[in-house]
Amino acid sequence: MDTPGKRLRQLIRQEGLARAMSAHSPLSAKLVEEAGFDAIWASGFELSALYGLPDVSLVTMTQHLDMVRAMAGHCGLPIVADIDTGFGNALNVLYAVREYEKAGVAALVIEDKTFPKVTSLIAEGRQDLVRLEEFQGKIDAARSARADADLMIIARTEALIAGLDQDEALRRARAYEEAGADMILVHSKQKTPDEIEAFVRAWKGSVPIVLVPTAYPAMTEKRIRALDGKVGLVIYGNHAIRAAVGAMQKTFAMIRAEGGIEGADREIATVEEIFRLQGMDRVKADEKRFLK
Amino acid sequence: MDTPGKRLRQLIRQEGLARAMSAHSPLSAKLVEEAGFDAIWASGFELSALYGLPDVSLVTMTQHLDMVRAMAGHCGLPIVADIDTGFGNALNVLYAVREYEKAGVAALVIEDKTFPKVTSLIAEGRQDLVRLEEFQGKIDAARSARADADLMIIARTEALIAGLDQDEALRRARAYEEAGADMILVHSKQKTPDEIEAFVRAWKGSVPIVLVPTAYPAMTEKRIRALDGKVGLVIYGNHAIRAAVGAMQKTFAMIRAEGGIEGADREIATVEEIFRLQGMDRVKADEKRFLK
Amino acid sequence: MDTPGKRLRQLIRQEGLARAMSAHSPLSAKLVEEAGFDAIWASGFELSALYGLPDVSLVTMTQHLDMVRAMAGHCGLPIVADIDTGFGNALNVLYAVREYEKAGVAALVIEDKTFPKVTSLIAEGRQDLVRLEEFQGKIDAARSARADADLMIIARTEALIAGLDQDEALRRARAYEEAGADMILVHSKQKTPDEIEAFVRAWKGSVPIVLVPTAYPAMTEKRIRALDGKVGLVIYGNHAIRAAVGAMQKTFAMIRAEGGIEGADREIATVEEIFRLQGMDRVKADEKRFLK
Amino acid sequence: MDTPGKRLRQLIRQEGLARAMSAHSPLSAKLVEEAGFDAIWASGFELSALYGLPDVSLVTMTQHLDMVRAMAGHCGLPIVADIDTGFGNALNVLYAVREYEKAGVAALVIEDKTFPKVTSLIAEGRQDLVRLEEFQGKIDAARSARADADLMIIARTEALIAGLDQDEALRRARAYEEAGADMILVHSKQKTPDEIEAFVRAWKGSVPIVLVPTAYPAMTEKRIRALDGKVGLVIYGNHAIRAAVGAMQKTFAMIRAEGGIEGADREIATVEEIFRLQGMDRVKADEKRFLK
Repeated sequence: MDTPGKRLRQLIRQEGLARAMSAHSPLSAKLVEEAGFDAIWASGFELSALYGLPDVSLVTMTQHLDMVRAMAGHCGLPIVADIDTGFGNALNVLYAVREYEKAGVAALVIEDKTFPKVTSLIAEGRQDLVRLEEFQGKIDAARSARADADLMIIARTEALIAGLDQDEALRRARAYEEAGADMILVHSKQKTPDEIEAFVRAWKGSVPIVLVPTAYPAMTEKRIRALDGKVGLVIYGNHAIRAAVGAMQKTFAMIRAEGGIEGADREIATVEEIFRLQGMDRVKADEKRFLK
Repeated sequence: MDTPGKRLRQLIRQEGLARAMSAHSPLSAKLVEEAGFDAIWASGFELSALYGLPDVSLVTMTQHLDMVRAMAGHCGLPIVADIDTGFGNALNVLYAVREYEKAGVAALVIEDKTFPKVTSLIAEGRQDLVRLEEFQGKIDAARSARADADLMIIARTEALIAGLDQDEALRRARAYEEAGADMILVHSKQKTPDEIEAFVRAWKGSVPIVLVPTAYPAMTEKRIRALDGKVGLVIYGNHAIRAAVGAMQKTFAMIRAEGGIEGADREIATVEEIFRLQGMDRVKADEKRFLK
Repeated sequence: MDTPGKRLRQLIRQEGLARAMSAHSPLSAKLVEEAGFDAIWASGFELSALYGLPDVSLVTMTQHLDMVRAMAGHCGLPIVADIDTGFGNALNVLYAVREYEKAGVAALVIEDKTFPKVTSLIAEGRQDLVRLEEFQGKIDAARSARADADLMIIARTEALIAGLDQDEALRRARAYEEAGADMILVHSKQKTPDEIEAFVRAWKGSVPIVLVPTAYPAMTEKRIRALDGKVGLVIYGNHAIRAAVGAMQKTFAMIRAEGGIEGADREIATVEEIFRLQGMDRVKADEKRFLK
Repeated sequence: MDTPGKRLRQLIRQEGLARAMSAHSPLSAKLVEEAGFDAIWASGFELSALYGLPDVSLVTMTQHLDMVRAMAGHCGLPIVADIDTGFGNALNVLYAVREYEKAGVAALVIEDKTFPKVTSLIAEGRQDLVRLEEFQGKIDAARSARADADLMIIARTEALIAGLDQDEALRRARAYEEAGADMILVHSKQKTPDEIEAFVRAWKGSVPIVLVPTAYPAMTEKRIRALDGKVGLVIYGNHAIRAAVGAMQKTFAMIRAEGGIEGADREIATVEEIFRLQGMDRVKADEKRFLK
């Protein structure tokens, strides 16, 4: 059977643009699959949020890896794992790549910020980048650690987030491609797609670009496809947890206001729908077959 | 400072009826608290669903306990922990009560089904009850294991779910109170509150009753309060995960249909709202104070 | 590359008798490999002891599975995983087999006691067996859950431990072979090999027998080989943790008595030896290569 | 009841010199307690070794914290937790201190190396120190995070290990005391006690010194006490795992050589001794009392 990395590469080749949706649990991963996305974005931000923690390197590799492994066991889509800076230096990257590959991921995203990190979306955050050579060493480590040559190593540059200009972002992207990155993720916090579109147009490299349009929602898939096929993957980075939070707030408020669940019951997924997602039909069949 | 068990007891005494909402993560627990509920229901069903697993004793005590401990660290409400059958026999109960108490819970619910269990809400499920004396042994074990005498041991009878009649349910409830249970949870899968109301009216014991009106949503808090103050706690058992599932399905479908996030972005919680829940303001203040 | 199950099958075919030593950690697993054994016995008893817990179904599948996965990542030997009763009924077995196979084991041992269990070696313990048909259902579940047909399902009968006679032990062993077990582990607490030798001589089945001579240490490999090649695997079940405990007691006592470490330092493994086992040489080479 | 921190402080006050032995599991912690030591050293090095990993920040806070919590549940001694650099910057320290305090530790040791670290005992390792002010920020963070003012924050300087001189080590130690450290651990890799003795004699601060004489075993407790009572705690840093490794190697070799366990059986701890450590007597009493 094809490895997850090979499946993701084929998907990008065939589709031109693959679409990944964030997930923070096997349940949300299954919903991503059922909705028809191409891949799972195993988001560090969403998992931090699930644990009620800020996304500043508090959630450990153990916690993220356990969740990624559980997702891989409950959904068939290729998983793109967000491992932030790789949990430390190049030695941590070596270890992480081995462990995530065994957990079943198709791709890993490593970013060029220093450890510990803060989330890229916060205003005025410290956004220090590591030296270009140091990050090339991390990419090299990631490549040498993978057992499957198709496992994708995605280098994420935070150059634009850190306030550096397009030239520096391009310089870093080229250097990361030279070091062996299979795709380049470039992040921006501009409210419109202009900065990113300019970057993609200026990109002369041969590996695809990855975009995360959280800050610039006007960047539709149609608009991305118009960029000469240079973008291979778009990641919707945090919409699973944001949808969940909004709905829980609304449902909880309704139950409090009404002093009961009758109204809320009609608005939310049914218990039977949860049973379906948990595979209760399979349980019943298994009980019939194996409980003697 | 008062122990969690003491706080829950005081709450029930003061409020007459305390309201617990289900949670499956520190994030959802925090939302329960912000919505103004009195307690967290650390639901085994919701956690199983989060992991994409049927609620048939597959999620381990380690996984549930870890999540309960994380919840206790991120919200101030008393936690009522759902430990199913106690993960085995009375010896497992001894161990579980010690561990959950250290994790910070206010109350534990143990049910009188056999291990491994299936969820009470599935039609035609096996719903075998343990012998009454065996379950009294479990309650006795739970009481003797707690370090804080205020930690509440809630005995849950599945007699009505198992197709037994009200007399048997009352007989079991009385026996569990004799064995030292601090409250009695009685479960029903009738679509209307009648069966449960009849049970509560017939209840002559001195400990409060706990209700979980999932199957009979017409049972409002107003209607519960009308039952002569015999009900001390109402648990809304699975509405957090059901709200989250419905919203993720809707959001994912919208993003797929529109080929982008612009529409969804306006419907769901903002990124800033997630930052607030993660405590990013505190992070910024801490960075200013401690990063030298 | 051959799967772990295939490698273990080949080993037994080639060697006639394979030898497994217990381990409770990646470190002890590595020492088992270096000592020249053929396989790792991922012992539930040893892991319970490591956690300071009695072996009565308190250590969860999560804890054991995590340790087994870590062992598989740090040693090349096939792993025989001790999953007790399968953590519940046949549905728990289905789940466990899938998870352990993904963790990289070569074989799983499931025993015919009821859950929760007590260790077989304690005198006067409750040693109730499940019905023969129920256990056949578990074996069937295990077989149907494995992705690799070479993953070995080993059925362990506690009939002799439970005070039943050889006829009942043979009847159960035959029934388990019929249900599809790949090997039969028969346990005895007799202080001499006689009972077990009589069992093996009377065994007419076509699958190999597995022995665990903890209680009857006179059963050497030479003596086992004399049993007409009917025994395929001998498991040394708890000698890693027992060796570790004895040595820590001795070392701690010496340091306390001498008021310092000078004497102990000469008796125990050197720090350099621990570095070697941790792979510090590899770390130095990796630092040279990847830290830029 | 006194908090663990208060008990450790009283112990040091009463004994003058407290003695901590390393542990890597609840089992080894219990053996430390039975041997009569005063405290547990929850060693990162030993836990890394148990997992077969080099001590270079690969074992996560989750793994170490889980083991520390398990130790706290199975032994009565105060625990001194080795948290290396605090898992990142001052924000990681804030989080870690809260979590370890809840897990039940009496003291935390934070060291002034950069993250990720290598073990101090390896020759030619990178041993970069963080800026003095940055480390003071970490101490300040640790102090402000603790709920119990008696929780001890121990600042560990690696100045001598990093090749800096005694003046710099003293300057750092003073600065750490000023920032609020409750004790100062000073590390040396000299083969004799001279360097450390010189440091202690030159120390004019008012908080006690902590020593870890792994590299200079001639440093007996008698010799430490001769240092005018300036040393409050001696940590035997890795002798539990070293004892265990040596004994497993010897036992495994004997079983391989003899082709059986008869010889080894007489050399190692008995199965009954493991039962005793697991509390099987308590299990039997509990079964009698609670299994109905």
